[in-house]
Amino acid sequence: MDFSGIFPPLTTPFAGDGTVSLTDLKYNIQQYNRTDLAGYVILGSTGESVLLTNEERDKIFVAAKEAAAKEKKLIAGTGAESTAETIERTKRAAELGYDAALVKTPYYYKPAYKPDVLIAHYRRVADESPIPLLLYSVPQFTGIALEPPEIAALAEHPNIIGIKDSSGSVQRVAETIASVPRAFQVLVGSASTLYPSLAIGARGAILALACPLAEKCVKLYELFRQGHHEQARDLQSALVRASKLIVSEGGIAGVKFGMDQRGYRGGLPRLPLQPLSNEQKMRIAELLAQLEPATARA
Amino acid sequence: MDFSGIFPPLTTPFAGDGTVSLTDLKYNIQQYNRTDLAGYVILGSTGESVLLTNEERDKIFVAAKEAAAKEKKLIAGTGAESTAETIERTKRAAELGYDAALVKTPYYYKPAYKPDVLIAHYRRVADESPIPLLLYSVPQFTGIALEPPEIAALAEHPNIIGIKDSSGSVQRVAETIASVPRAFQVLVGSASTLYPSLAIGARGAILALACPLAEKCVKLYELFRQGHHEQARDLQSALVRASKLIVSEGGIAGVKFGMDQRGYRGGLPRLPLQPLSNEQKMRIAELLAQLEPATARA
Amino acid sequence: MDFSGIFPPLTTPFAGDGTVSLTDLKYNIQQYNRTDLAGYVILGSTGESVLLTNEERDKIFVAAKEAAAKEKKLIAGTGAESTAETIERTKRAAELGYDAALVKTPYYYKPAYKPDVLIAHYRRVADESPIPLLLYSVPQFTGIALEPPEIAALAEHPNIIGIKDSSGSVQRVAETIASVPRAFQVLVGSASTLYPSLAIGARGAILALACPLAEKCVKLYELFRQGHHEQARDLQSALVRASKLIVSEGGIAGVKFGMDQRGYRGGLPRLPLQPLSNEQKMRIAELLAQLEPATARA
Amino acid sequence: MDFSGIFPPLTTPFAGDGTVSLTDLKYNIQQYNRTDLAGYVILGSTGESVLLTNEERDKIFVAAKEAAAKEKKLIAGTGAESTAETIERTKRAAELGYDAALVKTPYYYKPAYKPDVLIAHYRRVADESPIPLLLYSVPQFTGIALEPPEIAALAEHPNIIGIKDSSGSVQRVAETIASVPRAFQVLVGSASTLYPSLAIGARGAILALACPLAEKCVKLYELFRQGHHEQARDLQSALVRASKLIVSEGGIAGVKFGMDQRGYRGGLPRLPLQPLSNEQKMRIAELLAQLEPATARA
Repeated sequence: MDFSGIFPPLTTPFAGDGTVSLTDLKYNIQQYNRTDLAGYVILGSTGESVLLTNEERDKIFVAAKEAAAKEKKLIAGTGAESTAETIERTKRAAELGYDAALVKTPYYYKPAYKPDVLIAHYRRVADESPIPLLLYSVPQFTGIALEPPEIAALAEHPNIIGIKDSSGSVQRVAETIASVPRAFQVLVGSASTLYPSLAIGARGAILALACPLAEKCVKLYELFRQGHHEQARDLQSALVRASKLIVSEGGIAGVKFGMDQRGYRGGLPRLPLQPLSNEQKMRIAELLAQLEPATARA
Repeated sequence: MDFSGIFPPLTTPFAGDGTVSLTDLKYNIQQYNRTDLAGYVILGSTGESVLLTNEERDKIFVAAKEAAAKEKKLIAGTGAESTAETIERTKRAAELGYDAALVKTPYYYKPAYKPDVLIAHYRRVADESPIPLLLYSVPQFTGIALEPPEIAALAEHPNIIGIKDSSGSVQRVAETIASVPRAFQVLVGSASTLYPSLAIGARGAILALACPLAEKCVKLYELFRQGHHEQARDLQSALVRASKLIVSEGGIAGVKFGMDQRGYRGGLPRLPLQPLSNEQKMRIAELLAQLEPATARA
Repeated sequence: MDFSGIFPPLTTPFAGDGTVSLTDLKYNIQQYNRTDLAGYVILGSTGESVLLTNEERDKIFVAAKEAAAKEKKLIAGTGAESTAETIERTKRAAELGYDAALVKTPYYYKPAYKPDVLIAHYRRVADESPIPLLLYSVPQFTGIALEPPEIAALAEHPNIIGIKDSSGSVQRVAETIASVPRAFQVLVGSASTLYPSLAIGARGAILALACPLAEKCVKLYELFRQGHHEQARDLQSALVRASKLIVSEGGIAGVKFGMDQRGYRGGLPRLPLQPLSNEQKMRIAELLAQLEPATARA
Repeated sequence: MDFSGIFPPLTTPFAGDGTVSLTDLKYNIQQYNRTDLAGYVILGSTGESVLLTNEERDKIFVAAKEAAAKEKKLIAGTGAESTAETIERTKRAAELGYDAALVKTPYYYKPAYKPDVLIAHYRRVADESPIPLLLYSVPQFTGIALEPPEIAALAEHPNIIGIKDSSGSVQRVAETIASVPRAFQVLVGSASTLYPSLAIGARGAILALACPLAEKCVKLYELFRQGHHEQARDLQSALVRASKLIVSEGGIAGVKFGMDQRGYRGGLPRLPLQPLSNEQKMRIAELLAQLEPATARA
């Protein structure tokens, strides 16, 4: 099972009354089906997973599976705080036909989550899971980073096949790659370091920026693969600015607004997340307008 | 509604098969009913709230309410990541007869949770809640600290009557007290700074250390109230060591083991939380053995 | 040698041409000689020690010694990055008749300055110093905090008699006091936690706020000593606000401006430190004006 | 003035009696003169600049200038805490014929060193300096990072021609490059991210690892320039391990020990820096032995 390429972590669209809109979710997936995205992550951080009820999460898993084209790989976000619930969610995703589970670190009892506790947690989940696991380290949200030594220890488990590292630290990614077997797949989670991460051996990426800018992210991946390093650098430079404005500063509201601008169904995030200010919207709209002709030339 | 005094955040006992033991929960509460504790916090951080299912949480709210003596004040931990779910849990606690709700900050989308977002979240919950709210700032778990300016802003809401500040920062507590009306109740969450916090105006405390050491914590509170500052300082010094070993280093497993040593029903935490090592157990057992005669003299 | 009480870390006045004004330094000391301050710290952080040349430092040591009243204790700031230079400066201070040396941690090669390296550094300096040492932990400037275990190890050295802990963490101070012999003197460096720190056993304090507000700081110390805890709390509350505005936000420029307002010779700091904005000046002037009548009643 | 390529920040060798050994310094430079290093940095962080006296620093500047081959570019580390002393050191370096000055941020009064204060400091130094400046951001030592907005502001000054960014953050480097004119030269300070940094547009690097491993670092630079990305990635992977062990974990003692192993004159660092443990030495010696044949094949 190869997770090379670019995956967007799909957003969760809400209807006017605040309920999940499966219609809009399917609409977005149908648009993405026409691109060269490698597949989709369902219920990752960008999917507002932690703001949904169990029932909502289940409906989304079902709907996304139905809408996705057959050739697209499907990764289910199943990490919960408790080991038992993580296992339960992972089994459900397997039952529905997902290809792999993306399991974020537990993150509330930070002082207790020492490396050996995290290793025990992941081993237990991997033992019980019918589908392969991708570790998920996202310290900007969890306050916990998986470091190369524990990643290397977990890479020995036959059912743990890779990691999504969203730390944005190319150094950590480089150290990780230097400490795991070649078959272990390192995906990164930050569009602003996509090209340098690929250059040092990352296999692919799960990028919130790919929700509004699927083609651009795929294009950068392909420029790298084809050895067009000059063009890759120029496109990377454009994506640094886009990622900063849309993802880092705008957050999920920024990603969703960017989607609205590009013909997807973004909408608003759920409270406590707030919509963008008008000024933020204007800046993103401007940037997207500039980006199109500029990179069209490339 | 006055929340002066000492409150333990009750632990959640598990039976041998991993299910919640309401029997043991009630047993513990009956023990605490005989002390001078001011009341109880149900489903706080120490209650492993984030590791429980919705159904488990509800049963615990019901059982605790039944077991608690009438004069004990009951505070329900109701903070969830989403504003809507926080409101729902708070309403349920009100329905069951809880006196107040303790609402931790949402904490996953850290970069998005700027002061104005947190303020909007709390105002919404306070508007909807039938019972008064206590804010809850616990940065060691959430990575987010409520600072004096936003606390002062929220203190203006008639349904927000206080805060539990678990940062351990006496300076932050002092600045908070200096910036809110006298009626706003500041409780602290760290036994190791209980006495200095009371000295600068904290009203009381919600202390994990009070789960195993209810009487000691109550004693320190009373020594302070009676103006026995020398004795207060000596007992505080003993509690600094106990809090470090049992709570800071042992975590919930430490608190539960300490309870086992003192005649309560502690047991093990739920995975991914791990039990103590034998060496940790021995050190806690020794400290508790020393503590008794020492402070009995005081 | 007892360092109980309040010590200001004297500022370094500059003349219009940017050179050190020994005249103004002596003037300030003569004013302080009339107060109940326990003594003075010469060339601490607030003295802009790191912005001075060797020659300037020496002249200041000489001048301050001359101007200080005989009953005032004199503490020399002698910490440098290299062990050898720290020893040299300490010997010079001893030669000039200083009572003790305040030695900040070295701080440039942070990753290398592990606890055993710091311990070795301080032991070497203490072995060579003709006068007793006070350790100095000031993480907001150095990025390095001395923690209770290493303080306890160093407290065993006969020539290390205490510490100035400027972390502002009452918990760290409490843990330190719980881990050192009674004779070891813990001074704190933060006016905003002076009273709670005294309450848990700190011996005294070295306070930048005492440069402009010598009498207020001495008053709070005395209220505590006399057991007037209510009044102490009220004065502490006033000093929390003053310390935040003048010291935390204003920095050395704030301390010097506050001195100007109170009849001392403050002046401007040396570059790269910048003067206050007009708005900052106005706010400090207002606060000082309010403080006087308010605490005069106390 | 083009600072492309690899520069080692020269170490300062000490004789058996602890004094600076200019002989050994010159010996090392003569060895480096035979390599394809682009030039040298004199008195950077790795040169133990902060542990030397003024007199020692001056002698080193003079000796290095004498020993360096004419075609090698010479960069003088001149950053001091005070603006005035930084200017003085920079003028002296210019007088001696250095090509540029590398000016680290001031770093003691961290809370005061806000972006506008740092900008004012650098502008003042740049105005007064007879030679061009390279900014120097090294947060692991200083606790202060220059961020893209202030770098962009300073890049407008005609006498500020580049930056050494030692943060190790490829993302920050990418954002910097995206926000400055093409002529502004971004050098990085971390060997473990050399290749990805070059890939996104860094001009060159100042690498402590180049002190013991000059040829390897130059080789990686050349592989990148020639478009041999596969080989570059493999060599980068080897340098990640070397940099972690020798530079990150060993610090200056590690760099000097590595030099000893490779025929340079490393020796011991000055106190408070400590020598390596025997175990550290053994691990570095092993790694260097493995590195030679491994990368020789590449």
